[in-house]
Amino acid sequence: MLQGYKATCHWAFCEQLALFGVKVVSERVVIDRDRITGAGVTSGIDFGLTLLSLLWGEEMAKMAQLMMEYDPQPPFQAGTPKTAEKEIVNSLLQLGNPLIEAFLRQTQEIISK
Amino acid sequence: MLQGYKATCHWAFCEQLALFGVKVVSERVVIDRDRITGAGVTSGIDFGLTLLSLLWGEEMAKMAQLMMEYDPQPPFQAGTPKTAEKEIVNSLLQLGNPLIEAFLRQTQEIISK
Repeated sequence: MLQGYKATCHWAFCEQLALFGVKVVSERVVIDRDRITGAGVTSGIDFGLTLLSLLWGEEMAKMAQLMMEYDPQPPFQAGTPKTAEKEIVNSLLQLGNPLIEAFLRQTQEIISK
Repeated sequence: MLQGYKATCHWAFCEQLALFGVKVVSERVVIDRDRITGAGVTSGIDFGLTLLSLLWGEEMAKMAQLMMEYDPQPPFQAGTPKTAEKEIVNSLLQLGNPLIEAFLRQTQEIISK
């Protein structure tokens, strides 16, 4: 579905997405022809507003943004592996390792077919 | 519960909150003594991370922020009535008027008791 397309996903799974032949881009919302992808979890807000503006126009997207008071002020600069401290990134990767490994096994299984 | 405290809520209901004797502050997260309040909808993310850092420490809050890839990049500057165009604010207020009015009636009923 995304082979040969530029796309994004949660930062911890970008390498796995690339294994499928996807041109992984480190952005929160990526549009390539008729494929739109969003990065991890809260990127869905930016993704959703972008999609809404494409489907229903900017006015509707702005109304949605205003309704949900989306004027983000993160208390920390830790939302990406680039901005978070190394110790934070490592602690989280260690915690998430079983999940990441489980996905990797599935990814490799699918690719090998 | 919030009488005499500084607090916040969704921008469209701040005037109503003030009717209860609350010192309404136009911020996404407001801490006054042992009361913490968050503003509308997506403010809950900033609120949650702030609360997490108070309860479990900054490291845990940063890990949560990183896990949910909270590095927001809103496609528009329309998240508050201050930043959104007037037409957008008015359209949304018109759309939300039945709800706002219904809440106002309840508010007035409670206050009059």
